[in-house]
Amino acid sequence: MKQALQYVEAHFDDFLNELLDFLRIPSISTDPAYRDAVQEAATWLAENMRRAGMHHVTVYPTAGHPIVYAEHIEDPSLPTVLVYGHYDVQPPDPLELWESPPFEPVIKNGQIYARGASDDKGQLFMHVKAVEAYLQAEGHMPVNVKFLVEGEEESGSENLVPFIQQHKEMLQADTVLISDTAMLDEDKPSITYALRGMAYTQVEIQGPSRDLHSGVYGGAVDNPIHVLSRLIAGLHDEKHRIAIPGFYDDVRELTEEERALLKAIPFDEEAWKASIGVKEVRTEEGYSILEATTARPALDVNGIWGGYQGEGAKTVIPARAGAKISMRLVADQDPEDIAEKTRKYFEEHMPPTASFTFTYIHGGYPVTVDIHSPAMQAAAEALEAVYGKKPYFTREGGSIPVVADFKRILGLESVLMGFGLNSDAIHSPNEHFGINRFRKGIEASVHFQDRFAHQKKGAS
Amino acid sequence: MKQALQYVEAHFDDFLNELLDFLRIPSISTDPAYRDAVQEAATWLAENMRRAGMHHVTVYPTAGHPIVYAEHIEDPSLPTVLVYGHYDVQPPDPLELWESPPFEPVIKNGQIYARGASDDKGQLFMHVKAVEAYLQAEGHMPVNVKFLVEGEEESGSENLVPFIQQHKEMLQADTVLISDTAMLDEDKPSITYALRGMAYTQVEIQGPSRDLHSGVYGGAVDNPIHVLSRLIAGLHDEKHRIAIPGFYDDVRELTEEERALLKAIPFDEEAWKASIGVKEVRTEEGYSILEATTARPALDVNGIWGGYQGEGAKTVIPARAGAKISMRLVADQDPEDIAEKTRKYFEEHMPPTASFTFTYIHGGYPVTVDIHSPAMQAAAEALEAVYGKKPYFTREGGSIPVVADFKRILGLESVLMGFGLNSDAIHSPNEHFGINRFRKGIEASVHFQDRFAHQKKGAS
Repeated sequence: MKQALQYVEAHFDDFLNELLDFLRIPSISTDPAYRDAVQEAATWLAENMRRAGMHHVTVYPTAGHPIVYAEHIEDPSLPTVLVYGHYDVQPPDPLELWESPPFEPVIKNGQIYARGASDDKGQLFMHVKAVEAYLQAEGHMPVNVKFLVEGEEESGSENLVPFIQQHKEMLQADTVLISDTAMLDEDKPSITYALRGMAYTQVEIQGPSRDLHSGVYGGAVDNPIHVLSRLIAGLHDEKHRIAIPGFYDDVRELTEEERALLKAIPFDEEAWKASIGVKEVRTEEGYSILEATTARPALDVNGIWGGYQGEGAKTVIPARAGAKISMRLVADQDPEDIAEKTRKYFEEHMPPTASFTFTYIHGGYPVTVDIHSPAMQAAAEALEAVYGKKPYFTREGGSIPVVADFKRILGLESVLMGFGLNSDAIHSPNEHFGINRFRKGIEASVHFQDRFAHQKKGAS
Repeated sequence: MKQALQYVEAHFDDFLNELLDFLRIPSISTDPAYRDAVQEAATWLAENMRRAGMHHVTVYPTAGHPIVYAEHIEDPSLPTVLVYGHYDVQPPDPLELWESPPFEPVIKNGQIYARGASDDKGQLFMHVKAVEAYLQAEGHMPVNVKFLVEGEEESGSENLVPFIQQHKEMLQADTVLISDTAMLDEDKPSITYALRGMAYTQVEIQGPSRDLHSGVYGGAVDNPIHVLSRLIAGLHDEKHRIAIPGFYDDVRELTEEERALLKAIPFDEEAWKASIGVKEVRTEEGYSILEATTARPALDVNGIWGGYQGEGAKTVIPARAGAKISMRLVADQDPEDIAEKTRKYFEEHMPPTASFTFTYIHGGYPVTVDIHSPAMQAAAEALEAVYGKKPYFTREGGSIPVVADFKRILGLESVLMGFGLNSDAIHSPNEHFGINRFRKGIEASVHFQDRFAHQKKGAS
């Protein structure tokens, strides 16, 4: 590992220049006009991987943009790391807000400004360079590595799951390693160990068979908007717990250790509230904001409609009213089970004055990775080696579907070792990534491979 | 009066033919293409009134369509009846559903088929013919009459209130007489003695300062759709009474006589429910459907919106959610007072997690006419004389703004003596009006003028 780290030190300028080349390719996956550029980025990456010393480097065509695969199998008996990332980028609009062109990378104040610098070309490329360092400097690796890099992450990842399903054997590994999330701060290394799942549903209330004049019928017809409002109001109790029967049955309570980990995360409640313009929060009784948004389930009505929404007045009792209702789930809740319990809630509370239809639109499983697993411990040790301090273990309230997909299809847990910052302006003008983070990310990747080999050996 | 009734008998075929001519003029007030036809209808009506023997017949231009005025002042010391009606009609669309062209009147099975036959040319014309019968057959009238006939009733009556305000002196009278409502059935004469008023409002809830990702923030932010739903749910109590503090303060309870009048009205609850496709009704506890929809106030959310309403899923906590909320009022509720109490409800129940804006869009006063007034008794006697049975006194749940306008501006109550039927298909294809009802309407108008003169004499 020492020689690999020295190689990183000696070749860092080359790595940086290569990254700038990679960033010059406008691989915008949502825009058909950039189809050739997306292909070019895949080819460029594959070529770079080959030069790094990897084998079986393949640009797999899909129904959409290609998937790049590469591997280095040191010894089938060694543990295997599957690195996931994406080489496609968000569109750069609005162009006029960029201080320098999005696909002409510029280095300013230690930051690389370009679309994709942080999300995810820069972070993905760190792992490629770490493998190069091992292979070029030491001629071997402490683990086997495989790379799965898609070109459609910013446009729906439609072809990723089918590809994983069709290449289960090829993708067999012991852990997934992903750098596509944020750390808390420049000097606060972080590992995300939990993501919430989701059950997204829609309910429509049917009242009278047609829209009615509210002057003629008002007072005797149960307005479907009223029915819907009562039912939505009943979805939370006064402690702001979700009142769907059985909703919490499978919720894994936070362990004392997990609560301590969350408490250790620096969090400025006033700044948080100010950033979204709310005077007071509303969390489940007994839980902090961080706990409520990442470690506890939540229910939100994402949309509601019914009757007249235009200017002025229309005196109507609408025939129908509807709402989109989504639940954020935590381990060990099951999206389908939660959707069914939600449907039952509406069924049981539906008044005899109305009927309803219920649709389960889609769902995703929550993910919680054991922070004591060999891969997580390897990541923690790697970050400590590079930063000289233990990383924070963080949770995210949203979902990263691919993480649940890896678990579901390959049985693999993912290590989310991110080097982005919330201030990187990903998906916005002037996206950037710190040179220092790029360097530390490569070093951390080198350390991770080494520590993971040791952890697995210790565990077996 | 006897000679007037004989005149009606002798000239009824002429009256009918004149009405058919009137109906041939396509006076569609909403469609600018028919502007000349609307003017033509006004001119035709004025000419017919002149030939009937009326004076000061004038076609007043307005910013929109003209208003026709005419009068016969028998003796300034006699009571005066102000007849209101409208000579404009609804558009006939969809044309393909008419069995005969809408402006080529056809008589079939005793019904006159044409747009405007019932609403309101046919009903308005009855009163013109009654005056003609008096003036041509007897040379004098038992009362003074004035006609105020507008051409914009089907397009918002924008110029009517300014006209009334500018001609208060000219329009002075003792009662207004309007035939523009329905009777319960062909053999069930009816007088509408109460209309509900309205307060139409809009409320918008502001939560966070911008739309938020429900994965990242869900669980700690009070979603404005939830806030709105709770507040709407709280607008009714479990007895389906409106829970706005002070809402019922000025509600005039039904008298025993009024309850008896409503109970006397034939009403088929099952047919009513089937016609609007509801299995169960929801009325204020202790009140029947007819009472709840005509004699008690009601609150309806006429529209609700917030967040994502498109296809599929979007994971958003919206910054705002809103609703249009209207209250139907009964005597002696005041629209502005009710709007203010509604605003206060939202103010007092607004959680610290949200703020709101409230708009009072518009309102109208409820109307209840004393059924024992000379004009109402005259109408009841007139209908009894023609139909051989006492009329039903009915209430309507909706509003007829002009009735409140006459009360407010001229201090006059209106007698709503309608000869339409709910089956007349007004505003729909194949509108029609019964020849028999046209004849009885003329006779009832003749009787009304006579009875009103007697009633007023008795009262003074």
